[in-house]
Amino acid sequence: MSENERILLAHGGGGRLSEELLRNVILPRLGNSVLARLTDAAELMIGGTRIAMSTDSFTVDPIFFPGGDIGSLAVHGTINDVAMVGADPVCLSCGFIIAEGFPMAALERIVDSMAKSATAAGVQIVTGDTKVVGRASMDGIFINTTGLGVISPEVRLGANRVSAGDKVIISGTLADHGVTILCQRQGLAFDIPVVSDSAPLHRLAAALRVLGPSLKFMRDPTRGGLAATLNELVRNAPWGIRIDEQSIPMAPAVAAALEIIGLDPLHVANEGKLVAVVAAGSEERALTLLRSSPLGANARLIGEITNEHQGLVVMKTNIGGARIIDNPAGELLPRIC
Amino acid sequence: MSENERILLAHGGGGRLSEELLRNVILPRLGNSVLARLTDAAELMIGGTRIAMSTDSFTVDPIFFPGGDIGSLAVHGTINDVAMVGADPVCLSCGFIIAEGFPMAALERIVDSMAKSATAAGVQIVTGDTKVVGRASMDGIFINTTGLGVISPEVRLGANRVSAGDKVIISGTLADHGVTILCQRQGLAFDIPVVSDSAPLHRLAAALRVLGPSLKFMRDPTRGGLAATLNELVRNAPWGIRIDEQSIPMAPAVAAALEIIGLDPLHVANEGKLVAVVAAGSEERALTLLRSSPLGANARLIGEITNEHQGLVVMKTNIGGARIIDNPAGELLPRIC
Repeated sequence: MSENERILLAHGGGGRLSEELLRNVILPRLGNSVLARLTDAAELMIGGTRIAMSTDSFTVDPIFFPGGDIGSLAVHGTINDVAMVGADPVCLSCGFIIAEGFPMAALERIVDSMAKSATAAGVQIVTGDTKVVGRASMDGIFINTTGLGVISPEVRLGANRVSAGDKVIISGTLADHGVTILCQRQGLAFDIPVVSDSAPLHRLAAALRVLGPSLKFMRDPTRGGLAATLNELVRNAPWGIRIDEQSIPMAPAVAAALEIIGLDPLHVANEGKLVAVVAAGSEERALTLLRSSPLGANARLIGEITNEHQGLVVMKTNIGGARIIDNPAGELLPRIC
Repeated sequence: MSENERILLAHGGGGRLSEELLRNVILPRLGNSVLARLTDAAELMIGGTRIAMSTDSFTVDPIFFPGGDIGSLAVHGTINDVAMVGADPVCLSCGFIIAEGFPMAALERIVDSMAKSATAAGVQIVTGDTKVVGRASMDGIFINTTGLGVISPEVRLGANRVSAGDKVIISGTLADHGVTILCQRQGLAFDIPVVSDSAPLHRLAAALRVLGPSLKFMRDPTRGGLAATLNELVRNAPWGIRIDEQSIPMAPAVAAALEIIGLDPLHVANEGKLVAVVAAGSEERALTLLRSSPLGANARLIGEITNEHQGLVVMKTNIGGARIIDNPAGELLPRIC
């Protein structure tokens, strides 16, 4: 790294620069076998129990948005990271960093929202910390949540279990969260309002676990969107992924907003969706399991793992062509979560 | 709370306003039996193992200071919170929030420092997250660390085990961290430099645990200093604490700096000291155990639990008087940790 190099917004964007920061700066220094796995949550064995641990800091701006707020997002986001490695979430910690002068009523509303989200998810917030920083040094509020979950002995999930022929499923419509935040920030309004999909995915993930070994991999496509998630999955893999543009579910209002804004839905963050890779032959059962929950009502088979184009994500477009889906390099939208 | 009430720096100061925020805003909303204990770390039972979990966000300014930096402080601080409930720390998570434009070299130095501190402490950093925020919204870097530890079945620590006659011990000199940060920030320099005491206390705490049930309570006096720690201990208790000013250890340079600055050493943050309450008769052994480590070389007996002045901390002063040591109300020094 150059002496004069500086952190860019894109280093936090979940795409290529985020990955470079992780691989060039963080991992060589902090690296250990647990961290190096780069799963949504670390897996630890403590006292004979498989424990998942995940941390996430939330800096979303605006802090209140249609479908949620920074508090509910912080609860859901960490629950989801824990759930994606196959764990049942147990508890969360909560660290607030608040700017001096922040309205107490807004803090109360955020804490209310965290309490409601945690209770609905059946997860307790067991420990916390509050720091206050002068208003010259930051604005608003940042929240870190760290979550613990328990993984059943029989759960075996991971990119290393994926093989050609496996099917790729998304649990619902794409891009709702990112488009909602962007519209709020830009003051865009549509006839049909767009609403964040922020939601806890642990029950949906648990439902899929009844597939047993046929469930091979799960991840929630947040920062960097579906494109980053699928590119991470094919990285160094001896196979590729083919997805079908026509099969990708999108809310009509979100699709319309994306047309106007000019963003690729595959690059936009989701906060209540999961991608699952299942063995061929299990896709119908997986879709049925997902659709039995309102959170998975719009689940769709979007593609499959292929022996072709190793290490690449290729999309069959609506007009019949094929295009390579790249990992987003930059930062589409800072403070999306 | 009033409609117009706003967050003050003192709400993060570790004293009276911090406690009010916790009791009036956070606990009534998030409250559960684990959180309500308000120990340094939550205690959970997962798969038959007693697990301690603690979270802390670090916003210290300046980020590099004599004796450490925000990275080592973040590792030590959370290790210490986990150790104070009698746990052996196992692992940490690490969440970075970084301002756009932050020098990459400074980040590398901080991550190096975290790696060195974690390795020295025998603790792994197993999961992490990085967010980047626009430079208009914050400056510098904030780090959240959340730690897990394992508590042995026989450990029984808590304010409820304390009773009149017990002895109060401090593991070393007071106020080193807070005075160091303040001197850095004010550009004060002394002939004998002051240095932060930031250090991992888990081995010192483990050494004290050989006292068995005679070890009753431990806490590290960080924000709000010894005054906040002792006041929290006497809160709603049927006893009081008497400490002896003459017995309180302080580095000469720190004492001199405090004279100039005009701060009470009991209100200033420490980052490598613990307060222990032990049964009468165990104090000499406790001191020997502490002094066998360089981190506890200046351990001293500073007072005892009394039947008198219930709910109060009273100090016998150097000139023979007595004064009530109050919980600091305000924020002496924002961004101390």
